[in-house]
Amino acid sequence: MRAASSTGVQAANGVTNRKSNATVTDVEPSNATTEERVKATPPLQKKYRHVAAVHAQTRPSCLSHDAQANPSFLGFRNLMVIVLVVGNLRLMIENIQKYGVLICVRCHNYSRSDILIGLFLYFLIPCHLFAAYLIELAAAQQALGSRKRIQDGQAGPSEEDKKKFHSTWVLVAWAHGINITLGLAITTLVVYFKIFHPLIGTLTEMHAVVVWLKTASYAFTNRDLRHAYLHPVKGELVPELYASCPYPKNITMGNLIYFWWAPTLVYQPVYPRTDKIRWIFVIKRLGEVFCLSVFIWFATAQYATPVLINSLEKIASLDIPSILERLLKLSTISLVIWLAGFFALFQSFLNALAEILRFGDRSFYDDWWNSESLGAYWRTWNKPVYTYFKRHVYMPMVGRGWSPKAASLSVFFMSAVLHEILVGVPTHNVIGVAFLGMFLQLPLIALTAPLESRRMGQGGKLIGNIIFWVSFTVLGQPFAALMYFYAWQAKYGSVSRKMGA
Amino acid sequence: MRAASSTGVQAANGVTNRKSNATVTDVEPSNATTEERVKATPPLQKKYRHVAAVHAQTRPSCLSHDAQANPSFLGFRNLMVIVLVVGNLRLMIENIQKYGVLICVRCHNYSRSDILIGLFLYFLIPCHLFAAYLIELAAAQQALGSRKRIQDGQAGPSEEDKKKFHSTWVLVAWAHGINITLGLAITTLVVYFKIFHPLIGTLTEMHAVVVWLKTASYAFTNRDLRHAYLHPVKGELVPELYASCPYPKNITMGNLIYFWWAPTLVYQPVYPRTDKIRWIFVIKRLGEVFCLSVFIWFATAQYATPVLINSLEKIASLDIPSILERLLKLSTISLVIWLAGFFALFQSFLNALAEILRFGDRSFYDDWWNSESLGAYWRTWNKPVYTYFKRHVYMPMVGRGWSPKAASLSVFFMSAVLHEILVGVPTHNVIGVAFLGMFLQLPLIALTAPLESRRMGQGGKLIGNIIFWVSFTVLGQPFAALMYFYAWQAKYGSVSRKMGA
Repeated sequence: MRAASSTGVQAANGVTNRKSNATVTDVEPSNATTEERVKATPPLQKKYRHVAAVHAQTRPSCLSHDAQANPSFLGFRNLMVIVLVVGNLRLMIENIQKYGVLICVRCHNYSRSDILIGLFLYFLIPCHLFAAYLIELAAAQQALGSRKRIQDGQAGPSEEDKKKFHSTWVLVAWAHGINITLGLAITTLVVYFKIFHPLIGTLTEMHAVVVWLKTASYAFTNRDLRHAYLHPVKGELVPELYASCPYPKNITMGNLIYFWWAPTLVYQPVYPRTDKIRWIFVIKRLGEVFCLSVFIWFATAQYATPVLINSLEKIASLDIPSILERLLKLSTISLVIWLAGFFALFQSFLNALAEILRFGDRSFYDDWWNSESLGAYWRTWNKPVYTYFKRHVYMPMVGRGWSPKAASLSVFFMSAVLHEILVGVPTHNVIGVAFLGMFLQLPLIALTAPLESRRMGQGGKLIGNIIFWVSFTVLGQPFAALMYFYAWQAKYGSVSRKMGA
Repeated sequence: MRAASSTGVQAANGVTNRKSNATVTDVEPSNATTEERVKATPPLQKKYRHVAAVHAQTRPSCLSHDAQANPSFLGFRNLMVIVLVVGNLRLMIENIQKYGVLICVRCHNYSRSDILIGLFLYFLIPCHLFAAYLIELAAAQQALGSRKRIQDGQAGPSEEDKKKFHSTWVLVAWAHGINITLGLAITTLVVYFKIFHPLIGTLTEMHAVVVWLKTASYAFTNRDLRHAYLHPVKGELVPELYASCPYPKNITMGNLIYFWWAPTLVYQPVYPRTDKIRWIFVIKRLGEVFCLSVFIWFATAQYATPVLINSLEKIASLDIPSILERLLKLSTISLVIWLAGFFALFQSFLNALAEILRFGDRSFYDDWWNSESLGAYWRTWNKPVYTYFKRHVYMPMVGRGWSPKAASLSVFFMSAVLHEILVGVPTHNVIGVAFLGMFLQLPLIALTAPLESRRMGQGGKLIGNIIFWVSFTVLGQPFAALMYFYAWQAKYGSVSRKMGA
């Protein structure tokens, strides 16, 4: 304890001397501001030490409303972190006392056939890509021909030319449609009926969906490039970026393979590229992917699975308070797993991939955690998909005169269908929870949209952010997880009990 | 989903176009910054919509190290609060499912005799105050006499005068010492042997301790005032504040009664006063005191008591991990109770009291929650006691040439004794945990003192604050609570089981 009173600080806080019949000069001479915390210098006042007027001025308590300056509450932020850590430390002790160690490297159940079928489906995709390439190649040849004819006949594109172009496009569109949909359909059926393990199933299905989207983008983009190539419209330029590889130069297998791997869903003949590959960067990112994957596996086996299993009979008996209790207990761990997964995929994996491919544009996400509405969240958390739907669905629809609402509706409908495919098919339970979870975002978005507006100020933004977190991470995700796990149990009870214990 | 990409923002973040062979002009014309989130205006580009170069520039992910600007993490702060609320909501459901409602207004056990004895002890105090008043009155009379003599004989204070003054002081000091110590001793013995209920015991004991400290301050201050009155030393002035009531005018029963009630432990003939009593303010503060007391009672009965009871056999069987688990579970609730109690006493009650007494100086505490060391905490959380020991123990000792360390040591020793009296006596278990808990602060303070220094920067301050919170609220308090509860159980097992259930 040092002889440092904080009168100095109080004065600094602007606590003036009003209503006081004393003056600050009365204050003990040895005072030092708490800021400096100087060692106690023996007071000038030698004799009457017990006389010093320590209560020299009228001043409010620092938490009172009439205090001039609000104190900082940084300490309470630290306290929150500590309480969170402590609380979960306790739950970890409880968990280990109750279940012991549930981690077991050997008792995974990737059946040999699952892996083989998965690999087969993986290598099936390039065939479809090759088909897509051939389709575009044919279209390009045809385009070269008509371009030639137009230039020979020095005439602008005739009506009959335009018709021809359109009929070709219809043909091309059908060809692409059949090709990629076939690819997706085959994968989906095989995954649903032949691949048991949800993880392998999910990876395979996701690959198929991604390629489906990419090829669609490939077709649309080349359609417009071809159009610009044959019948350029005044004042409508193809982006300068593409100048280095103009249509039809871009129709090569290499270009398509690059797009297959590139961390984007949107086709461009040319992407901004970085100069060189920073291998250290790649290694770091891949290290993150590995560590986070291990962490997720650990968290799932040790913490999530027991909660899920315990909640089964609660759901069966529809014991609402217990279900809620399970849901809340699940929410923390599912949140942690979700955050780890997000970072592993969008930050670590996509950055590693982009670095290897020297892909320049790394904005795979924005600061979605600050979202002040669900709309903001869906705009920022997964930018590859957001950008895709905006470029190939939303903007064209709006451009054709649809209302933004209608366009959004169709985007969310498609996205909902894809979600159900990605979750329902690998878990062999197309129960529509993922679909609804996605589709029910629209009312929530409409609800929270006003909160972003400047009018609402900070309060609105805060409420919006809280609604986002609660609806999404506290209720939405654990609920969906619980539903699919329950459905899975109903189907393969014994197996996942083995997985659980 | 609206047609708002965040390229604008990325640019605003200062992500320049280096390493990119594209220019920002390539970016889709309908872009709007995410800040504005404008409605989707139909794009200028009518035809080639699927061509737009959405990947127009090289830019890092916002969480990458090579990102120019760090994103805000405010959203995660909100998430922390939500997870805390959710986690404890879950524990509340668990608690209610396990124990049901433990609150019961009737089953307190304030025995009639406890209350009567408590009241008796409360009204015993004024007698001791009256005795103190008489002692000072006598001293003042004697002082008036010698002052007269000095002035008659126009001479400065003679040696024999000084001796006389000192001998009188010794007499006065003894008289005061016997008087107040008698008061404290009687209360302590009666509380320990006659008052069963810890709450009533604590209130009574605290009152006695407070009056003991106040009377000591009263004696010391008047000694110095008398000295200044008889033998003024050059250049050493009594604070101007006291001019309105110079010695010996201040020796009145009214003045002493005011000091008895005033929210301070330090005697001053005159205090800064406010102009009027804001009754609304008083009512609000008293309302806070009531609500917080109910809350504390509820939290103790419903959440703390079960944890304490469950931990008994764990302690008996010295099952370390389980004890730790109990300790961590207890820490959250004891922290909440502690914070509520702090606010109720230091903000609400003392402010209400000060307002009623028109007592001006309301700085009963500073922002201790930001303490960067334990020293800072003990300087700021309880300023009445801190100021008291600084004025009447620390400064005089340092003034007499003691080292600050020695002075601190004795301050903490006294404070430790008082803590043990305040906790041990009403719980009828003087087991020295409170004493040690207080005394062991010194090594912790020495340990954390360097962390405050500017050199250490923010990191040091953060570590200091965390050490403070963990040592104090997470481990220290719940441990002490556990110990005294265990000791109490050992003595009156049956009773508190009744209290618990």
